[in-house]
Amino acid sequence: MDKIIEPKILKGFRDSLPEQEIRKKKMFKDLEETFSSFGFVPIDTPALEYTDVLLGKGGGETDKQVYSFKDNGERDVSMRFDLTVPLARFITANKSNILFPFKRYHISKVWRGENTQRGRYREFHQCDFDIVGSDSPSADIEILIMMKTSLEKLGITDFKIYLSNRGILNKFLEINEIRDKSAEILRIIDKISKIGKDKVKELLKELIGESKCIKILDFINPENGFEKTLDKLITLCNGDNIETDRLKVIYKALKENEIEKYYVLDPTITRGLDYYTGLVFETFLEGNRDLGSVLSGGRYNNLASLYTNEQIPGIGASIGIDRLIAALEKDDNKKPQSLCDCIVFNIDDDLIGLLYKIAGEIRKKGISCEVFPENKKLNKQFAYAEKKNIPAGVIIGKDEKESGTITVKDLIARKNYEKIKIQDGIDKIVSIVREVIN
Amino acid sequence: MDKIIEPKILKGFRDSLPEQEIRKKKMFKDLEETFSSFGFVPIDTPALEYTDVLLGKGGGETDKQVYSFKDNGERDVSMRFDLTVPLARFITANKSNILFPFKRYHISKVWRGENTQRGRYREFHQCDFDIVGSDSPSADIEILIMMKTSLEKLGITDFKIYLSNRGILNKFLEINEIRDKSAEILRIIDKISKIGKDKVKELLKELIGESKCIKILDFINPENGFEKTLDKLITLCNGDNIETDRLKVIYKALKENEIEKYYVLDPTITRGLDYYTGLVFETFLEGNRDLGSVLSGGRYNNLASLYTNEQIPGIGASIGIDRLIAALEKDDNKKPQSLCDCIVFNIDDDLIGLLYKIAGEIRKKGISCEVFPENKKLNKQFAYAEKKNIPAGVIIGKDEKESGTITVKDLIARKNYEKIKIQDGIDKIVSIVREVIN
Repeated sequence: MDKIIEPKILKGFRDSLPEQEIRKKKMFKDLEETFSSFGFVPIDTPALEYTDVLLGKGGGETDKQVYSFKDNGERDVSMRFDLTVPLARFITANKSNILFPFKRYHISKVWRGENTQRGRYREFHQCDFDIVGSDSPSADIEILIMMKTSLEKLGITDFKIYLSNRGILNKFLEINEIRDKSAEILRIIDKISKIGKDKVKELLKELIGESKCIKILDFINPENGFEKTLDKLITLCNGDNIETDRLKVIYKALKENEIEKYYVLDPTITRGLDYYTGLVFETFLEGNRDLGSVLSGGRYNNLASLYTNEQIPGIGASIGIDRLIAALEKDDNKKPQSLCDCIVFNIDDDLIGLLYKIAGEIRKKGISCEVFPENKKLNKQFAYAEKKNIPAGVIIGKDEKESGTITVKDLIARKNYEKIKIQDGIDKIVSIVREVIN
Repeated sequence: MDKIIEPKILKGFRDSLPEQEIRKKKMFKDLEETFSSFGFVPIDTPALEYTDVLLGKGGGETDKQVYSFKDNGERDVSMRFDLTVPLARFITANKSNILFPFKRYHISKVWRGENTQRGRYREFHQCDFDIVGSDSPSADIEILIMMKTSLEKLGITDFKIYLSNRGILNKFLEINEIRDKSAEILRIIDKISKIGKDKVKELLKELIGESKCIKILDFINPENGFEKTLDKLITLCNGDNIETDRLKVIYKALKENEIEKYYVLDPTITRGLDYYTGLVFETFLEGNRDLGSVLSGGRYNNLASLYTNEQIPGIGASIGIDRLIAALEKDDNKKPQSLCDCIVFNIDDDLIGLLYKIAGEIRKKGISCEVFPENKKLNKQFAYAEKKNIPAGVIIGKDEKESGTITVKDLIARKNYEKIKIQDGIDKIVSIVREVIN
């Protein structure tokens, strides 16, 4: 008895049960179809890489969260903690086999030993899409349009994409002679939705004094509408510059595509990560801002600086898969998921061959169909079908075999259809099964 | 300069480039569609688990190949090395949330620190499907039919499934009073395709003496056809037994489904793994036996013995994804893959908004379409399209804008279609693009 091991799971890790897994796969399929429809191509990279390749020679804040160890060959290895660093590594390593501009997507698991008390998981999916090798405003526009199309494909319509441009803020900081404090200022502003405006004011005042703090608070305060906010930024930057021009181009294209209402120019958006250099964005569900951003990213113009001296510009976005699944699950909970369209019951083991034949014919017509694998009491087989939410059932037993008929059952309405002569052909059976399903 | 890190990858690990990744995703999609059509449901489990949960308290041959380490919380953890042990753990841990018979599939990565000199990879995909919680011959039949359907869905038709039943061999060993040597005998027979019949004879003779060795060699020598081989096994077992009866039921059902020609009763099939108790099978491509078995498995009647005293019977099969990809890639190499259907070229940055609008309309008609993100020389844009094997191109520049027309280009035949009036509507454009693609 004491040989038995408790089948326990690590903290921060989860099993994915069929209902969840089906939902997740459906989501990935929808996203992949969207990305492909924009000509984006998928890649994959190893889950394990050399530690110095993922973290650089130093290593910073992230390190403590990374699963690092020595493998059996005494190499220092780590499990990937995001898909951005592997993308940079991938591009440098496969440069001669990659077509630029490189439009790629990558949906895969990453691992971080995060504090699970904050509701975080240690294993989760990331879904990134990027255009690498182009610094054009057109690439920015494409990513922004793809973000909207992706969310709509998932059935999400009530969202807004909040965007800003780090280049404009940096220009403004330069004019106000506080460009050297840029990193700290960006990080403080980034926290505004979490800590509130007053706390941001306090922190900024401490860092750069009251008068400059007030200027920044004015800068990040959005006006009514994209164009008015942009006008204010231009004024505060002493006129147009290359980055405000870029935002103009972007907004014009969004308007020409009649989708501008989804995009909000919001200078409080700065994104925490150091590598962003231009456009940055976050996406919130209108009725569910507390969920946090479900789709974020920005432009980085030096992606692969860890591996090459060559400047490789790009822009990318990352979908918060787990957040979106949580949001969609809430909506979905009402309608039960059907895990199969049709079931063939087994009430006579001598007929097994026939049961599989009928199931096979039904499947050929594009209807998923399973055979109950044991000759159990029918009420047990019905209970199985009910738990799997299977709408249609097929019964064939000795009586039926002798009379050459089968019975189709509507398992939801608990109603039998008339007996169907097997010699009338499978089409008749399939048409009734289809009627029951719909 | 010396800050640059070489973007190297661990031995035994691989990047997946777009062409490969698309092929792999297509294969997974085909398989998932097949499994779902049989009412099978997907699950997922963590990549990392407690080491003793994956390996038991002892640990054997496998251990050295497993990526094990201490996590930041000093727990002994390991990366999963197959999908069978996690299935057993999953079933025991989630018993109350699982519907039995549990028909599940699982496609995911596993990791083994194997010797890469033998052409093995340390990170690879496994694809398993199992029926857990049923010991019926019907479950055996379902798995055997699903194997055939899955391979056909992948476009593979020239294969044979070689099957046998460990129970029959064990019965035979019992009669010959060598049942206690069962494990060693099974293992020797299992090697027959690698080491040859003579070497098997030599090893068996050493183990059990010449006369019993000859009996076994007779037992494992297939007769001409399923039924004749089965008849011989029955004779050698002194008459029918529960396992030979089961094979009769299975063969009858295969015949009733008119698919018996795909299945060969071959008593040399034993499978190496200890946990199989009944039916075992391997699948070989007829023209490519050297590739090894591409789809193997069997019945195990004590799956979760590590975690529970309850007997949980099941049957499962595992597809050799990497082997199949290698085999299919060889066939596929002739026809280049198109990574997008249509491209909108950019010859005037002022028109970006319009380019995305046209691309969006084309996409809405189910045609994948990308916009070239930079206003580069047209021959560079053409070269990009050619490398991506994009068949159709759309050009709109100043001239076109002024005349309100666009040009559709057949990029393979290098031929321009007549200019199309934009006001004639997107349908006209789409119909020509569709003509070019087909």
